[in-house]
Parts: sequence; C-alpha cells; structure tokens
Amino acid sequence: MSAATKLRGPARVEINEVAPRDGLQIEPLVVPTDAKVAFLDALSACGFARIEATSLTSARAIPALADAEALMHRMQRHPGVRYTALVPNLRGLERALSCRPDEVNLVMSVSETHNRANLRMTRQQSQDQLLAMIDAAGAAGVPVNVSLSTVFGCPFEAEVETAAVMALATRFADAGAAGITLCDTTGMAYPTQVAALCAQFQSALPDTGLTIHLHNTRGMGLANAVAAWQTGVTRFDAAAGGLGGCPYAPGASGNVSTEDLVHMFDCMGVETGVDLGALLDVVAGMPALVGRDIHSQLLSAGPRLRTHQPPAWLAEHFAGQP
Amino acid sequence: MSAATKLRGPARVEINEVAPRDGLQIEPLVVPTDAKVAFLDALSACGFARIEATSLTSARAIPALADAEALMHRMQRHPGVRYTALVPNLRGLERALSCRPDEVNLVMSVSETHNRANLRMTRQQSQDQLLAMIDAAGAAGVPVNVSLSTVFGCPFEAEVETAAVMALATRFADAGAAGITLCDTTGMAYPTQVAALCAQFQSALPDTGLTIHLHNTRGMGLANAVAAWQTGVTRFDAAAGGLGGCPYAPGASGNVSTEDLVHMFDCMGVETGVDLGALLDVVAGMPALVGRDIHSQLLSAGPRLRTHQPPAWLAEHFAGQP
Repeated sequence: MSAATKLRGPARVEINEVAPRDGLQIEPLVVPTDAKVAFLDALSACGFARIEATSLTSARAIPALADAEALMHRMQRHPGVRYTALVPNLRGLERALSCRPDEVNLVMSVSETHNRANLRMTRQQSQDQLLAMIDAAGAAGVPVNVSLSTVFGCPFEAEVETAAVMALATRFADAGAAGITLCDTTGMAYPTQVAALCAQFQSALPDTGLTIHLHNTRGMGLANAVAAWQTGVTRFDAAAGGLGGCPYAPGASGNVSTEDLVHMFDCMGVETGVDLGALLDVVAGMPALVGRDIHSQLLSAGPRLRTHQPPAWLAEHFAGQP
Repeated sequence: MSAATKLRGPARVEINEVAPRDGLQIEPLVVPTDAKVAFLDALSACGFARIEATSLTSARAIPALADAEALMHRMQRHPGVRYTALVPNLRGLERALSCRPDEVNLVMSVSETHNRANLRMTRQQSQDQLLAMIDAAGAAGVPVNVSLSTVFGCPFEAEVETAAVMALATRFADAGAAGITLCDTTGMAYPTQVAALCAQFQSALPDTGLTIHLHNTRGMGLANAVAAWQTGVTRFDAAAGGLGGCPYAPGASGNVSTEDLVHMFDCMGVETGVDLGALLDVVAGMPALVGRDIHSQLLSAGPRLRTHQPPAWLAEHFAGQP
C-alpha cells in the first residue's frame, strides 16, 4: 500500500462547550446557581465559540436545570461567544426567547425507541413539534440548531440507518434550521462511519452548519473527532472534564472531554480559539463544583510538552561522560 | 473545503500483545509464575499475531520478570502466534536464545536523557550494544525487532527530532533488524505527527516491518492508531486492560488497551485475527491477576452493538400508538 503523506483538515475549528447543560443535567448533585454562574463565566473567559448554557426544560423532569432563566440572566456574556440553550418544546422555546439566547438547540432521536424513552414522544410527534419550533424561533429571529441523537447507533435498536439520519437532517434544514448536530449519544460511532456520514452530510447539505457531538464511551472519541475533521467538519461539541453520559446506556462514559479535544487540536496546529491553560484551571475546579472526582486524563498528565526532572542519580551516574 | 469521501487503510492488521511484559513489569504486585502462564495461555487462544511474553532482564532490576525462562518454557505455544521476548543486553540475549523465542525485541531511546534514565547507558553505548546483539541474534537465526522509545516526544527533553528517529531506524535496519517499533513511550504523539512519521518511515524503509506502540495518556491512543493505519501501518502494539506506563512520567497512563483497539478495528471491518469476546474474558480476569482494579472502557460499556432493554414504562406509555 502506498503511504498517504499527510492527514489534512480545516485550519480552524469551533468548540461548543456543553458541560453546563449536557453535563450538569445528569450530575447527582444539583449545583447551586451561584456556582453555575461562576462556572459559566470562567468557561466564557476560555475563548469558546459557543457555550450551551442550560436547558429550558421542566424543572420536574430535570431539577438540576430548574434555574435556567436565572442563569441565562446572571451569566456574563462575552463578545465572541454564542450562548445557546436547549429547548425541548414550544413552552420551553417561549421561556428561552425571554432569555435572549444567541441560538436555540432542539433535539430528537433518529431511532424510535430512544426518542420515546428520552423524550416521551414518538418520532413523528417530535418531528412535528420541532418543525413548529423552527417556525416560531424563525419568527423571533433566533437561529435554530437541531441535535439528532443516536445517529451512529442506538442503545436499544443497535444500528441506525444513514438514510433515516439524512432524511431528518434534510427535513429540518429545508424547514430553516441553520445547523444540525450529529450526536453519538452513547459512544457507538467509529472513525470510518463518522467520516462517511460527515462526508455525505456535507455533500448533501453544504449550506447547513454541521456540528459533531461525540462521546468517549469506547475510547474512540478523539479518533472520531479526527475522522470528522478530515472530512472538513469544523464544529465540535465537547464537555469540560468529560461530563455527561446517557441514562439509558449503563456503563457509558461521558462526552469527549473539551480539554482533550482542544489539546489535540493545539498539537495538530489547528486553531480552536480556546486557551487550554485557562480551561484546565476550570477543570481543576470541577470536582468542587459537582462534588465528585473528575477523571480528566489531560489534567492528570498535563499537555504533551510538560517535562519532568530526570532522576536525581542521573548526573552522578554519568559524571565525566559526554 | 471539499469533503474527503472515506478513511482508507489496510484491510488486515496484526496486534502484538505486550501486557505480559510491558504491563506486568511495572505492576506493584509480582504475579506468580503459574498465574502468568495461565494469562499467557489465555492470550494465546485469542488469536494474536505476536505476544511479547517477557523480558530477559536482571531479576534485581525488574523482580516482576525474574521467572522469564520458566515462563517461556512453560507457556503453550499456539501455531500462528509469534512469541517475542525483550532483551536488554548480550547476556539477556544468551538467556533468551535458550528459550527459543520466535523473535527478540531490543530497545533504546531516541532521546539521550530518557535512554540514560531508563537503560543507564548513553545512546552511543546502547547503539553499540544493539548492533552487537543484532549480529549475535542473526548468527543464531533469530529475527530482531528494535523498539525505539521516546520517538514522538521525551518526558525530559520535550520534542524529539524526526531526523534522529530516522537515523537510528536506518542504522538498525541496515544492520539487519527485520522490524522497527516506533514507541510513543509517554503518550506525547498526536495524529498528524504519527501520520507524517509513519509515512516517512515507510517511504525510507519499505522493507523494514514497522510497528507502532501507542499510549493513551492524553486520550489520543486510538486517534493515533487510525492515523498510522491510514498511512499503511499494519502492526500495532497494545496491552490488554491498558496495562503499562512509564515510571519517568508521573500521571501517564498505560498502553493503548488491546480490547479498545481490536474493537475499533472490528467496527471498521479491519481484520485483526483476535477474538474480541475471548479477549474480554481475559481482561475480566485481570483484576484478580494484578490485584487491583483495571479500568477497561470497553469491558464496562461492552462492544458497540450491545443493546439494552428499554425502560419498563415505555410499552404502557405508548400503548395504542403506532
């Protein structure tokens, strides 16, 4: 086989930090609003392109995010950061619009069973509702992104048809969604699959912003990110500290951790706009935020060029040698 | 940017299982020989192309591997598996040859400080000794592989020059080494770097077997494996359970875990010859082997198509709906 010379991809990517919503929503500890505001403000200072701040969802369904409006009003908005909010239904959209999000993010699953389990609606009900929300958000002048769950596999149904993914993506793009996020909800994606679907998406919907949302459940998070990047993808969801997960896939770990992703792009000379040092400071404070240990590989090991002192015996052992 | 259509690479790869040597050598618990034999025999049944069984090193330096000869004699050799042994010096080579390895693996670091710290020799001393060992092994008719450490970065010196890597690889290949392993000793490699060096290597030394040895210290283990595979690399070191590490890089985690690597290649339709189910059974027994928890992502999450039962309320909630 002739050797390929280089891995190629875009020179610049955008990171959408989702820990405040996707992470905190399944943490056992309900983080107080003051601490959330401080967390969001610290993330805002890191240089993210987007931050998904919260979800305007039912406080009964997700008590951890019951302070959504307060948070959106109290957080400091940094120029250059787009603040998005997840919105599950028309009532949530109304609440969201009162908080002046730069964008709203809607969600449904490509697989029927996951949609029913996660959203308590059939796919048809979800699709109808999302189309109505795209109209309503459009009327209010707020751009809409649609996150499609279980795109690369479903924890209940196993394989998911690419045709079903593309049909939904196309339907929402045609209806006016500015962006679509392809979500690997439970970490079932693998690199050749990611590359093939991302390439197909960009070819079919070249004017729709494509974001990829990856989990690291089976160790392939960054491999999938590189695969997507090689096809031209420039937008990546990630969660500081690798927070997140899925209640319907026991053993599944969380999102690709933002610090690992930013570090990898830094190494590859791909601009993210994110200050890795500032981000690692935030991650270092996360165990206090969520009241449990956070296993951050990059925080443990440090960036790749962090050097260590040679053992003390070395100088003496080699004294007099060149 | 025009979207690339596909990630491409070889249809078949070979896995070299290194946990019995590279993993057990730094475990705090000295595993009894009986348990090691059972571990090796179980690995042999998984279908690996190569297993690095042990190291013929000083029992004082590495007490965990003091039973090297006994192990090599007692393990069952499976047809189709090549059994290799790490050999640090000429005395070790003599011992190794008495154990009938299918191949011996020599090691030195590309960076001076790591070579001194890890091997207590200057690079020049190591190089001279390796050349003498290549001669001696050649005279005995045993193929030699040379593992070059700190190829992608050194925990003491930071960046390592590609020219230094290629000079050493070329020197050993010219001297008769059948294979070279490029080792990311402390997990400093990143995908574009791996692809560039692997491409350069294969172009410069097309007749020398190239193996890549990756760590997952900063989450990039599988991303680097895919990068190498895309340039045509077909041989990968990996350690069951992700055992291993480097005593000179605090916080560094272990080798790419074999089960994650095999699973990824399985997903991508790339043949490894390894039976993932059999391997996961071995990994499940590893905590008992080494007397500590083993954090295996794949063992926790299961292969990607492992499905879960939908929540019990689902059927009733959607009763009567299509």
